[in-house]
Amino acid sequence: MPEFRQNKATKEWVILTPERGKRPVDFVKNLPPRKPLPAYKDDCPFCPKNEHLTLEPIYTYPSPDRWQVRVVPNKYAALQPSLATTRSWVGSFLSAKGFGIAEVVIEHPRHDNTPALMTVDEVTQVLKAYRQRQIEISKNEKINLVTIFRNHGARAGTSLEHPHSQIIATPIVPPHVRYPMEQALQYYDQFGRCVYCEMVEEELRQEERIIIDSQNFAAFCPFASRSPFECRIYPKMHKASFILIDDEEIVELASVLRETLARLYFGLNNPDYNYIIRSATIGDHDTRHLHWYMVIIPKIATPAGFEIGSGIYINTTSPEEAARFLREVEIK
Amino acid sequence: MPEFRQNKATKEWVILTPERGKRPVDFVKNLPPRKPLPAYKDDCPFCPKNEHLTLEPIYTYPSPDRWQVRVVPNKYAALQPSLATTRSWVGSFLSAKGFGIAEVVIEHPRHDNTPALMTVDEVTQVLKAYRQRQIEISKNEKINLVTIFRNHGARAGTSLEHPHSQIIATPIVPPHVRYPMEQALQYYDQFGRCVYCEMVEEELRQEERIIIDSQNFAAFCPFASRSPFECRIYPKMHKASFILIDDEEIVELASVLRETLARLYFGLNNPDYNYIIRSATIGDHDTRHLHWYMVIIPKIATPAGFEIGSGIYINTTSPEEAARFLREVEIK
Repeated sequence: MPEFRQNKATKEWVILTPERGKRPVDFVKNLPPRKPLPAYKDDCPFCPKNEHLTLEPIYTYPSPDRWQVRVVPNKYAALQPSLATTRSWVGSFLSAKGFGIAEVVIEHPRHDNTPALMTVDEVTQVLKAYRQRQIEISKNEKINLVTIFRNHGARAGTSLEHPHSQIIATPIVPPHVRYPMEQALQYYDQFGRCVYCEMVEEELRQEERIIIDSQNFAAFCPFASRSPFECRIYPKMHKASFILIDDEEIVELASVLRETLARLYFGLNNPDYNYIIRSATIGDHDTRHLHWYMVIIPKIATPAGFEIGSGIYINTTSPEEAARFLREVEIK
Repeated sequence: MPEFRQNKATKEWVILTPERGKRPVDFVKNLPPRKPLPAYKDDCPFCPKNEHLTLEPIYTYPSPDRWQVRVVPNKYAALQPSLATTRSWVGSFLSAKGFGIAEVVIEHPRHDNTPALMTVDEVTQVLKAYRQRQIEISKNEKINLVTIFRNHGARAGTSLEHPHSQIIATPIVPPHVRYPMEQALQYYDQFGRCVYCEMVEEELRQEERIIIDSQNFAAFCPFASRSPFECRIYPKMHKASFILIDDEEIVELASVLRETLARLYFGLNNPDYNYIIRSATIGDHDTRHLHWYMVIIPKIATPAGFEIGSGIYINTTSPEEAARFLREVEIK
């Protein structure tokens, strides 16, 4: 029987139609075989010895010469830091120059590595680069929103194979980001609590969608998952922004993230995916109604006209089944 | 130079990065060749003589035996009309049974036809089927929203090649639909006018993004296009719902829609696309602040982590260039 479910925080609805759905094994069966990557590629701009093909690094770990993680301005940036932020009218339409910051986080020297296969320490260093860059970018008074994301594979919108993620910071806070924040504020005003804290507690109480329950983090397939095997990682403690994560927590997050990605990698044959870190807008890092989190979306389903038109996603795999499957995956 | 642009009605922002972009000819060049479809397919449930493979038709034109258009309940419906609409708590999460209506509009007997190649009369009959079904479904007191959409090709989320579109009607009005309506209401209260009427007038005044300007309809690539070659068709007269379209207007719309789709078909080598008809919620058909329209989205770009995370779409083709290109396409 199909079922509507609502995301407690954003008020978005999804439709679960598990009886139309496929078993997890079907997803694996129908995926095209992935050709293995070489460990090094001469013409890859992110491989060692090709550092001259990127712009000057903003951040390196442990050092510029022998780097493990390297952050560079995006050479093909969608936004440019040199522009003004003034908004102007084009007739009665609103426009602004494309001011913003776009950076690339090169996650590892090896061309064929991926967070699912890295060590916890390697993933920790990637997350530390994110945190450091988000802290630095947040000092820019013209920036209001920092989005950190990773596109894995062609279906997830990347053309570069070398393991990397991206940071895009904008002066603009769009409705897609603002509306859920307004919902969270209304919830706080009505119930006196962060809705995300309550959502995480409820997921832990119901238990069946949990993938990993560590000391400070919970990874689960959310009650109102929009697509098959959607995973989210929330800090259990109330923190509105990722920049507030401390050194101990970041190691723990690296372990939870790596394990979640490894469960997807081995369970679903290295699927394409996007992950995103959502944080409070700049200046709202200490607010009581917002809560940072990570969302991981394997690119298995294709959103069609109904999803685009209504915003209601039809999900053919129940999150309970997805979580059970992911818990049972053997990580090699 | 990149540019932010805002959708006047929804307040959503996009980033235009035309200098990173490709010329329209590049989109065509890189598309995989499409294999031609047969005119008839033995095992296609929507081809004539296979009527028994679908559920009983709800609507046929001109007659059940010799049909040109045929509407049937979706055999693999995501929602079911027999369920209750009561919402219930699962712990502190909200859920509802999957009540709703899901229908398939079989647009033509020929397996290899498509609206871009149909006659205006054939497209008119498809639109009349939409109108008739939307009117009928709107009488159901439990339904609040009717979404009419078409998925063309695998990248647009369809697996069935036979020309068809779909109707899904839900008891739920999700935030994705409600928020723009609230924006339009605020605009109406502030400026005393329908924001969509003003948007269409402004597009007609600026002219450069117009594809077709007919007596009662305007087809254009909107100022804040989210993806390359996004097209929209708006009625110039204020009407909140598609069910209010009259017999003369529906022929004119068929002509504008067919021509727009043909320009995409011949200009971009029959790209996959979604189209959606957006109407007011049931009961709001006479409201002064809402305005129905069609949006056509060729599936050329892949939304990635930034789009999913921020809701800001990066569009590599300026709508001015897209419209110019589409105006110049030779329709065979």
